[in-house]
Amino acid sequence: MQHFEKAVIVGVGLLGGSIGLALLQRKLAKGVTGVGRSEAALQRAAAVGAITQFTCNLDQACQGADLVVVCTPVQSIGEYLNRCLNGQLADGCLVTDVGSTKERICSLIPAEGHVRFCGSHPVAGSDKSGVDYASADLFQNRLAIVTPVQQTPPELADRTERFWQSLGCRTVRMSPAEHDQAIARVSHLPHLVAAALAAATDERLLPLVGAGWSDTTRIAAGNVELWHQIVEENRQPILAALSEYSASLMQWIRAIERGDAGLLVELLEAAKSKRDAVGRLEASQTD
Amino acid sequence: MQHFEKAVIVGVGLLGGSIGLALLQRKLAKGVTGVGRSEAALQRAAAVGAITQFTCNLDQACQGADLVVVCTPVQSIGEYLNRCLNGQLADGCLVTDVGSTKERICSLIPAEGHVRFCGSHPVAGSDKSGVDYASADLFQNRLAIVTPVQQTPPELADRTERFWQSLGCRTVRMSPAEHDQAIARVSHLPHLVAAALAAATDERLLPLVGAGWSDTTRIAAGNVELWHQIVEENRQPILAALSEYSASLMQWIRAIERGDAGLLVELLEAAKSKRDAVGRLEASQTD
Repeated sequence: MQHFEKAVIVGVGLLGGSIGLALLQRKLAKGVTGVGRSEAALQRAAAVGAITQFTCNLDQACQGADLVVVCTPVQSIGEYLNRCLNGQLADGCLVTDVGSTKERICSLIPAEGHVRFCGSHPVAGSDKSGVDYASADLFQNRLAIVTPVQQTPPELADRTERFWQSLGCRTVRMSPAEHDQAIARVSHLPHLVAAALAAATDERLLPLVGAGWSDTTRIAAGNVELWHQIVEENRQPILAALSEYSASLMQWIRAIERGDAGLLVELLEAAKSKRDAVGRLEASQTD
Repeated sequence: MQHFEKAVIVGVGLLGGSIGLALLQRKLAKGVTGVGRSEAALQRAAAVGAITQFTCNLDQACQGADLVVVCTPVQSIGEYLNRCLNGQLADGCLVTDVGSTKERICSLIPAEGHVRFCGSHPVAGSDKSGVDYASADLFQNRLAIVTPVQQTPPELADRTERFWQSLGCRTVRMSPAEHDQAIARVSHLPHLVAAALAAATDERLLPLVGAGWSDTTRIAAGNVELWHQIVEENRQPILAALSEYSASLMQWIRAIERGDAGLLVELLEAAKSKRDAVGRLEASQTD
């Protein structure tokens, strides 16, 4: 188990706060420094026990740090990483992030020289945001995808995986491009499908909705600006996923139009069998 | 509060079983007779306390009944209603159903003569089916839609509403056609959108899914044959809803393709505001 003397969390919201809580409660870090733009937000993060100290000065925070995790909204991650990697970092400091898109962020890794950053994406979250919803268990049994590139030293990728495992995650490695294609399909597409369903529902019908509508649209309550940024960051893979989904929806429409019971049942069964498989995976992970 | 001497439930699964449990636990019925095709299933329903007696003979069950609720899969409801309404029913017996489509079922009501049947649809359910998941509280704070037609005596519609209210439901009245259009949008469409998403997900990506995919596809685990029947029963309103949804999805795709941030944020905000409104409704109902 890695132990950190001084962990730095840039952006102490739901994810950053949960990392801080987990590092401290599991005694994986002696101190956790929160970095952000708002003193009030940092004070709140300290009050809930997610950080032990804080500053609005990134360079100062990074001095002597052995772990830096950038947890800001995805469009700012690159900027903070650049500032941090171009500053004064101690030898052996591990730098990673939590961005849900990886290709643009990982393209910042220099082709030559000492590589300190390895991208990652813990597939955990909530329709809630903010440090008040942070939890030391947010990562328990969740998947963290680690995205080394060609110039990443194997030892750095190993340490990044071990970091997430120490917070309770399972880990898997992918290239940044593979990651973005996969996550467009399993995370960004569901969000847009759910949001399109919620947006398309006539206001007057809202009092009639039941558990099906509510479950299916739950993630549409997520932070608008965050999702806007994700869509901009991962535009091409998202467009590909949306177009495929839209084409597959046409197949459902044609099956219903034609009264093709065989095809409709086949589609419903494919859906149920995949959903049931995920249900079994989830059940086995909470055992 | 209406009190029933002999309630009859035709089809004692999740919904029928929950009605039986609620009638008995709330002491709204002295006895509840379950009717079904399988003795073993009826024995199970009796064992969990959803019915007090059972028979496979519908005519026999209906003798002396003052309430008959048909809770079979939607395609069989018409047939059972016909048999029951053409048999020997006591004066003052209330007959209703739980079908999630109403126009075809309610078209069985004769244009003339004594009307005993008033259609209804409790908007409650689960991705689980079967009497083992039945619960006396399934209807608590749920909506029941009651669908009288022109020839329905007002007193019969009133009694049908009071019946659902006595199980804990809020009630609303609509015409069968209005009901089918509305439910296609708030219940059937979400199911198909969720199922299409689950079916479209590559098997190899399933280990990567997070809570967003899981929430959005939850109802896709529902009973395939039940949903196949619902789609056949409510084909035209469902096709209209699917086509509208598909067109609205194209609007999202175009906004993302063009990089139209203003439109994308507007769409995400419309989605969030509607989902938040339903969240508030749900919270106020569980208070």
